[in-house]
Amino acid sequence: MKFCPACGNQVNLAIPPGDNRERFVCAQCGEIHYQNPRNIVGTVPVWDRKVLLCRRAINPRYGFWTLPAGFMELDETTTQAAARETLEEAGARVEIQELFSLLNVPRARQVHIFYRARLLDVDFAAGEESLEVKLFDEASVPWSELAFASVEQTLRFFFADSASGNFGLHTGDVVHSLHAD
Amino acid sequence: MKFCPACGNQVNLAIPPGDNRERFVCAQCGEIHYQNPRNIVGTVPVWDRKVLLCRRAINPRYGFWTLPAGFMELDETTTQAAARETLEEAGARVEIQELFSLLNVPRARQVHIFYRARLLDVDFAAGEESLEVKLFDEASVPWSELAFASVEQTLRFFFADSASGNFGLHTGDVVHSLHAD
Repeated sequence: MKFCPACGNQVNLAIPPGDNRERFVCAQCGEIHYQNPRNIVGTVPVWDRKVLLCRRAINPRYGFWTLPAGFMELDETTTQAAARETLEEAGARVEIQELFSLLNVPRARQVHIFYRARLLDVDFAAGEESLEVKLFDEASVPWSELAFASVEQTLRFFFADSASGNFGLHTGDVVHSLHAD
Repeated sequence: MKFCPACGNQVNLAIPPGDNRERFVCAQCGEIHYQNPRNIVGTVPVWDRKVLLCRRAINPRYGFWTLPAGFMELDETTTQAAARETLEEAGARVEIQELFSLLNVPRARQVHIFYRARLLDVDFAAGEESLEVKLFDEASVPWSELAFASVEQTLRFFFADSASGNFGLHTGDVVHSLHAD
């Protein structure tokens, strides 16, 4: 940020009174512009113990496989975001179930949140941001071609819980990356 | 947003190519400025089945009681944010335990996330944003003087789970407000 979104004048980094970290503060109107992490929200869409994955048609990680997920938008809830992203990226209608994973990705300034979801039918189809969408059982998942570490962790949790029959909530931090950016 | 944070020129609302909702787009440099919900993260700090609450020294809801919580910052995780806010607002050191509630507050464009936490000692003290901090059992909680609906819901979940001895994860949406803004 270089300019004030409120008045268009220059912003500087400064610690506001009563605060303890640097913020972008407008030199003209004094407005403080906070920046905060963003939520990526998606689903683990399941049909007959198989999971629906999307091959990415966009960067980053073009051509790699991911769970349907994307940035949570203003004026929606996490479950609405999860269902919307699943419809947009995989053309899939789901019933949202329990919160399944919440993984911090501080390096990307994001929190990744996945819900388990039941596919309502198998009439899915690649959306604009996907090259193809396909159901995978554990053995057939393209483990070496997954787009993001949070997706890999969530899938490993899912198949482990699926094998045990007990689905839990999985929380943690993703500190490594699957790609060399 | 009226001006482009990148170049300082005017922004307009427009639906970018390949998108399906209006964004602030710079008329000069073309940069798209996304806006997304923010996370409020905090704890349910517990000592001997009592919960530590803070009476707010800031608006909104000055003088009302809340759980220690605040905006998640860049470059931290949800658990780090929860522990930091508990230290800043209540002067309290905690061991972060399980994720306890995740409540959407779409009206405020926020997600409220609370962790259960074990107070490490009772040497807590009001921080700059609190008038006082105090431990409450269920009967003594100032239920009619709570600051936010997400705090009330989280406290009700906590005391119910505490009575049953089984602490779960509680998710949902907060659609009403405790105050008339």
